[in-house]
Amino acid sequence: MATIKLADYLFTRLRQLGVESVHGVPGDYNLELLDYVEPAGLQWVGNANELNAAYAADGYGRIKGISAVVTTFGVGELSAINAIAGAYTEFSPIVHIVGVPSRTAQDTRAHVHHTFNDGEYGRFAQMHAHVTAAQTRLYDPQTSAEQIDSVLQQCLIHHRPVYLQVPVDLVAVPLSTERLAIPITLPPLLPSVAATADVIAKRILDAIYAAKQPYVLIDGEIRPLGIVEEVQTFLDIVQWPTFVTPFGKGLVAEGRPYFHGIEKGKFGEVSVQNFITNADLVLDFGPHNSSTNTFYHTSTPKADVTISFTPQGTQFRTEPEIVRDVPVKAVLKSLLKEIDAKRSSSVYSNAYPAGLARDQIVSVNELPAPDSIITQDKLWRFAAHFLREDDIVMGETGTAGYGVREMLLPARARFFTPVTWLSIGYMLPAAQGAALAKLEQQKLGAQESGARTILFIGDGSFQMTAQELSTIIRLNLNVIVFLVNNNGYTIERCIHGRKQGYNDVANWRYLEAPSFFGADKDAFVSSARTWGELQAVLQDDRLVNGKGLRMVEIHLEVEDAPLGNLRHLLEMQKGRE
Amino acid sequence: MATIKLADYLFTRLRQLGVESVHGVPGDYNLELLDYVEPAGLQWVGNANELNAAYAADGYGRIKGISAVVTTFGVGELSAINAIAGAYTEFSPIVHIVGVPSRTAQDTRAHVHHTFNDGEYGRFAQMHAHVTAAQTRLYDPQTSAEQIDSVLQQCLIHHRPVYLQVPVDLVAVPLSTERLAIPITLPPLLPSVAATADVIAKRILDAIYAAKQPYVLIDGEIRPLGIVEEVQTFLDIVQWPTFVTPFGKGLVAEGRPYFHGIEKGKFGEVSVQNFITNADLVLDFGPHNSSTNTFYHTSTPKADVTISFTPQGTQFRTEPEIVRDVPVKAVLKSLLKEIDAKRSSSVYSNAYPAGLARDQIVSVNELPAPDSIITQDKLWRFAAHFLREDDIVMGETGTAGYGVREMLLPARARFFTPVTWLSIGYMLPAAQGAALAKLEQQKLGAQESGARTILFIGDGSFQMTAQELSTIIRLNLNVIVFLVNNNGYTIERCIHGRKQGYNDVANWRYLEAPSFFGADKDAFVSSARTWGELQAVLQDDRLVNGKGLRMVEIHLEVEDAPLGNLRHLLEMQKGRE
Repeated sequence: MATIKLADYLFTRLRQLGVESVHGVPGDYNLELLDYVEPAGLQWVGNANELNAAYAADGYGRIKGISAVVTTFGVGELSAINAIAGAYTEFSPIVHIVGVPSRTAQDTRAHVHHTFNDGEYGRFAQMHAHVTAAQTRLYDPQTSAEQIDSVLQQCLIHHRPVYLQVPVDLVAVPLSTERLAIPITLPPLLPSVAATADVIAKRILDAIYAAKQPYVLIDGEIRPLGIVEEVQTFLDIVQWPTFVTPFGKGLVAEGRPYFHGIEKGKFGEVSVQNFITNADLVLDFGPHNSSTNTFYHTSTPKADVTISFTPQGTQFRTEPEIVRDVPVKAVLKSLLKEIDAKRSSSVYSNAYPAGLARDQIVSVNELPAPDSIITQDKLWRFAAHFLREDDIVMGETGTAGYGVREMLLPARARFFTPVTWLSIGYMLPAAQGAALAKLEQQKLGAQESGARTILFIGDGSFQMTAQELSTIIRLNLNVIVFLVNNNGYTIERCIHGRKQGYNDVANWRYLEAPSFFGADKDAFVSSARTWGELQAVLQDDRLVNGKGLRMVEIHLEVEDAPLGNLRHLLEMQKGRE
Repeated sequence: MATIKLADYLFTRLRQLGVESVHGVPGDYNLELLDYVEPAGLQWVGNANELNAAYAADGYGRIKGISAVVTTFGVGELSAINAIAGAYTEFSPIVHIVGVPSRTAQDTRAHVHHTFNDGEYGRFAQMHAHVTAAQTRLYDPQTSAEQIDSVLQQCLIHHRPVYLQVPVDLVAVPLSTERLAIPITLPPLLPSVAATADVIAKRILDAIYAAKQPYVLIDGEIRPLGIVEEVQTFLDIVQWPTFVTPFGKGLVAEGRPYFHGIEKGKFGEVSVQNFITNADLVLDFGPHNSSTNTFYHTSTPKADVTISFTPQGTQFRTEPEIVRDVPVKAVLKSLLKEIDAKRSSSVYSNAYPAGLARDQIVSVNELPAPDSIITQDKLWRFAAHFLREDDIVMGETGTAGYGVREMLLPARARFFTPVTWLSIGYMLPAAQGAALAKLEQQKLGAQESGARTILFIGDGSFQMTAQELSTIIRLNLNVIVFLVNNNGYTIERCIHGRKQGYNDVANWRYLEAPSFFGADKDAFVSSARTWGELQAVLQDDRLVNGKGLRMVEIHLEVEDAPLGNLRHLLEMQKGRE
């Protein structure tokens, strides 16, 4: 019987699933494990710290559908745990692999480092059980391969992090290669379930054909549901007015005539609000109804006219029971097989009101004088000119995260914005992971790929995880950082403490970052305070078509914020003062 | 009845206990709370991220005996949790205050940000229960003052972190001021316990008077036990040969003739090992017997000749039961009242062998030629010349953390070295906290105080939390950073993967750090690669007597390590290759 060492088995499985790079930080209990990363055909990233490593893995996983991060027992895994929690909340499939002390150390309750010096080894796994979809502790080689396969499959199914402990003394233990020949996939659809899917699809089609003023809402859980392609096909057939949530933006094409941008609920245009109010059918794909993703629940469609496609199943209007145990992907496949394009899209011309507002790009002619300062009311819709196909566009929690939602996206652009976890500091490392995943998807080196990862990030957020710029530099990733400098936590000033010192941050010399973190001395950096300066820099070929890290500092007023709910909060606060 | 708002009550209590600065990061659920920090007479520090904030609070707490850190629900508290775990392991008393969503949000299981969007609000407290000595969730004003007082007292008693949730809607609720008049203190000693302490002390004195070749081992848990002063008094009476563990170093005066430095177990000098082997009594104060604090358990004294003073009580040799429920502080006080100096110290002259090795400082004359490269065999004992009274000396986990153990400390110097948790990245933020605490203890501003916090830190560790330099700069703290640049994780190379790429780190331009993080452009930075350069910089008055942040990059060979166990591990690894 052919054998393979346990660590090699694990990394071979990850490679089979599409992982090409492993994020993480070395530590005493994972060094032996790391010996097997590169021999398995994987790149070792090596991040500056574990929180950043897991954030980066999150970004990578959202682009590639799976990622891996390796940490060490206790200190490493707990440093990463906030990022793992975020990945759980927003459905990023991360395999969190933890190198742990030997089985002998565990069995004898040895007082070794990275423990609490009390012989208790189970704590960290218990903590991770709160933030992962599955956990396993390898201990016996007889079951190890199956345990690995099981958590990996659960990672695929749930699109959420899983947790895997590998004791140092198991790393090189031989396992049978037998299972390796069978790919890890989603469970197959049973014939009985497929038949039920047809029945559910038929019910939905009846609703579709009967609708007079329908719309579609695209939310972010279509990604973990694996229905992004099916949804796009559906939209192109029915061509109904289509809105996205912040979490859903970037998952469907925005160039289509039926696309209307983010449904902003009570903060939206009046024409949209009226249209929404009178809708008689809403198809809600992948709903993720957190207050922050739904404009305080005001963009959540009315239940009595809504059919929702969720990880739990299909929900028909206000029926007391959701239709469980039939994956909505199967339902959609049935629906797409049966749908009569004429009967469904004919609804469109009846229902679509000509005056329904849509997202716009601001042209140069609409800008204030070149020497006037940049303001957030127009910044985002103007900067949208800078985007191009295949870019990854990221707006970190803060004013930037709200601003980027106003940007119309080119074809195949992907999008990151604050959704629910909202952990500031997330997006810079996530940009490293996303940029790397994009390169791998394109099968191109950084020098050949034109795809860019464009990060808009505030000064306060930047300070949280700034060191991950050095990984971007070391891997020569095509990342453009727009550092939005507004002297502190402006989003917090909008919420509370408009003039309070605790919303200040230290003054850094931000544009020295590339040099400090090891970039070539000629790495592109620039700054803009006026509309004229911004126009110039956005046309600079070194920024637009350069390679590797580029950085622009945009100076904004302390109390400036994008149009919409942040301004609303600020005004409410002024009213209370 | 006089009332006080809840947040004011909490911060007033902290102020009473000696907290003068509060670490943390603002977040949506703690902003209202932060409004009360400065009005209560406390400084708000405002760190770059929550992990760093909690590390800083740990450093502050070890110097001042209590500290506080404020984070926000979910994202903030989980980012900090690794530091809280370290503080639990190594006994730093941190009050972790978390601003949480309103009681209405909790009761209605609202899907708000910083949750998992599933209505479950209890997870993060459950995770913290693994890493804190006490937890409380404020909910009802009727019990809130008592709950606050209870966790604060437990923080004092256990010298470990405690966890406190404050909902946003409770911040300004009025509480009675009544309790505030009664200080929070350690519980009083009951007369019956005091009497038992006398009996225990008598037993110990009998052992002391009977000893022929005794020694004393000082370990780090004498700090949480609150017996640092009593132990010093005892040592000056008996004058027995005294050793410290790494954790204990810096807690007793090193200038005394009876002080012999760290007991290195099997890595120690032969004369010491022989002496230890033949000892007939060991007084082990505050033992913390992790493998990393005891040279793989080889410096742990033999149980059959040892009396230990621990948080659990007094342990007499191999007796099956420890003597519980009588604080060893009370035992020591009894002992010091009764001890006959002549009978105890007379043992000293009999037992003390003239040839017993002691830590040494390396003089300039013993150095190699000025143009030869700096090596770790002499670096640390030479650099000890640089230290002066009242300094705080810190060596981060890595070769620096082992190196600093060779440095003889001046009077009143405090010392930080890897003990058990060993989370790299800890010590730079901890230096911020320790330096701030020292200033407050001296009741001096940074400009008046001559006390310095001197941090030796490797490049890999520095990268983890480098941004906290900006807080050191902003607060103008007297911190000197010796950046030990040996191109990666040398300590890991000693353990495993001597030539492996995963032990590399990115190349930063380290000396650009002060400028990047906002220091004045004339902040002192320098570097040394040779003994001559090192001598010159260590005598530079701008380094020695300057103010604020100063930074020196010391270049060392990739595989150089301090004498002792790291070199031993490296040689073992070479032997296996």
